[in-house]
Amino acid sequence: MCNDKFNAYAVMEAGGKLVPWSYTPEARGDWDIDVKITHNGVCHTDLHMRDNDWDISQFPLVAGHEVVGEIVGTGKLVKNLNIGDRVGLGWIRDSCRSCDHCLSGQENICREGYTGLIVGHHGGFADKVRVPADFAYRIPDGLSSAAAAPLLCAGITVYTPLRTHIDKLGMKVGVMGIGGLGHLALQYANAMGSEVTAFSTTKSKEEEARSFGAHNFLQWGNEEEMAEAKGTFDLIVCTISADADWNMAFDLLANNGKLCFVGLPVSEMKVPLLPLIFGQKSVVGSIVGGRHFMQEMLNFSAVHGIEPQIEVMPINEINEAMDKVAANKARYRIVLETA
Amino acid sequence: MCNDKFNAYAVMEAGGKLVPWSYTPEARGDWDIDVKITHNGVCHTDLHMRDNDWDISQFPLVAGHEVVGEIVGTGKLVKNLNIGDRVGLGWIRDSCRSCDHCLSGQENICREGYTGLIVGHHGGFADKVRVPADFAYRIPDGLSSAAAAPLLCAGITVYTPLRTHIDKLGMKVGVMGIGGLGHLALQYANAMGSEVTAFSTTKSKEEEARSFGAHNFLQWGNEEEMAEAKGTFDLIVCTISADADWNMAFDLLANNGKLCFVGLPVSEMKVPLLPLIFGQKSVVGSIVGGRHFMQEMLNFSAVHGIEPQIEVMPINEINEAMDKVAANKARYRIVLETA
Repeated sequence: MCNDKFNAYAVMEAGGKLVPWSYTPEARGDWDIDVKITHNGVCHTDLHMRDNDWDISQFPLVAGHEVVGEIVGTGKLVKNLNIGDRVGLGWIRDSCRSCDHCLSGQENICREGYTGLIVGHHGGFADKVRVPADFAYRIPDGLSSAAAAPLLCAGITVYTPLRTHIDKLGMKVGVMGIGGLGHLALQYANAMGSEVTAFSTTKSKEEEARSFGAHNFLQWGNEEEMAEAKGTFDLIVCTISADADWNMAFDLLANNGKLCFVGLPVSEMKVPLLPLIFGQKSVVGSIVGGRHFMQEMLNFSAVHGIEPQIEVMPINEINEAMDKVAANKARYRIVLETA
Repeated sequence: MCNDKFNAYAVMEAGGKLVPWSYTPEARGDWDIDVKITHNGVCHTDLHMRDNDWDISQFPLVAGHEVVGEIVGTGKLVKNLNIGDRVGLGWIRDSCRSCDHCLSGQENICREGYTGLIVGHHGGFADKVRVPADFAYRIPDGLSSAAAAPLLCAGITVYTPLRTHIDKLGMKVGVMGIGGLGHLALQYANAMGSEVTAFSTTKSKEEEARSFGAHNFLQWGNEEEMAEAKGTFDLIVCTISADADWNMAFDLLANNGKLCFVGLPVSEMKVPLLPLIFGQKSVVGSIVGGRHFMQEMLNFSAVHGIEPQIEVMPINEINEAMDKVAANKARYRIVLETA
């Protein structure tokens, strides 16, 4: 089995469509596992990689980094996982394993820089993938494979900052942007004992936001509501990737409040220093999460019944799925099923 | 004694000199104490208040908010302090005492906004002052009154962010600016188990910085040294109040690193969001400290032998002292002795 061909969908050049393509993986190492893939979430990052937006893509590119499947092969030193186990893979494939951050469970900020699952390696839009066993996570019984897939990137992206910055019960947490990330953030923040407010320009999203766990709804840009909310939030998680008036969000922070970016906007924020100091505020970033939080997030999701709202599509409709994500029409995450 | 006159030095109008002036304090409340002042630190904030830079000064203004003295009167409900006790007073005179921040020892970010010792009240450039007893702090035996005075504002200003953001041993901590705040920050960061680097444009400050506890010295702006230091600091405390190229400091942060402002620069910082997110960095502010940290800071200073480097001047040279601080010629804090 070690030198089987893996059948994938690959992008052959920047901006191209995904086309059937197969490759022979590197020989399986002692610490590697082979995963037969059943489900794959589609993430905006797959689009960035397809289009080589960050100049780190290598073609042919097999994207897909929200992977769930079953182990069908193990290297001889793999002990914690067995053939038949259901596992998930996320954005991070490997790290230096020796810096202080890696040694303390923060591989996502490895000092040497971690390896992405689809950066110089082939990812999950395939029938199989070969990866280091210790960057695979057990999917708890309570989670379906389809629901688990988006948690492996979208879920951890919002779980990590909430888990890190929610440090007491009853904190007032705002979630800016109700989409693939935001609708999960509402659920986690609620389950972590916070008073949760959804921010959206779209008033019609209120009912749905409340169904995800929002206790309150703030219509972004509504002057009266914005004025009333000023200075009241202990934590605001910005999940949108478009540019926005970040200083309006900053003004909503209470003293000691934190404005946290996870949505990869490419702009800058002009932080006014006197209000930052006098209000003892913070502007922070967060990027996916380490292995410790990955497994914890999956377990937490299963215990608290937290799942993404998904649309399942067959893997052969992968280009339609990518286009739908590009058009921001996914409600809220698309999961590809590998038959 | 309740209605004695207090003899002070007051500023009669914005930008004016300090002149002898006396006033009759409000009747002493049950929770108040009268303090006979022996020492007063001079802080840049006294200059801002003298000149009404923040539009909150009320004249006649008795500045002085780094106060040490002896209790000479107590209201009938004061139990924790007695006549003869040596106490210190800092920037904060009072707070709402009921919001969640006050109830958790963070009066410095009281949701209602705290009262400044010299905002609408008369401060320490006087022979006596009347204040709420529970915003007075015991000066430990190991600290001289002259040395303790600057700790009550300069000390707490750097102690709080270090105490808050140093969360493990061996952190790489940079202190930007070696002056009244910075020379104390070097001492605290060292005593808190960090590897401490002093940042200064002035190479000649290296030896002195090392005497305060710096293990390393970075000459700010030296291209070679800046390049080598890039991406290495877990925490940088910016103690300077002038504007600077904050993004050069940001680039020195390691992943998870924090850039902390305490020096009241009036500018803004353009924070690049992608590096903030991918490096999981923070830009934060900090303002003096709550009562819990005030007492702890004094005790910690006594235990670890941390003292400001001071120049003692008699109170009747108060205008010369103010001018010297304004000209950035104090090395590093001036303390006025009330004969």
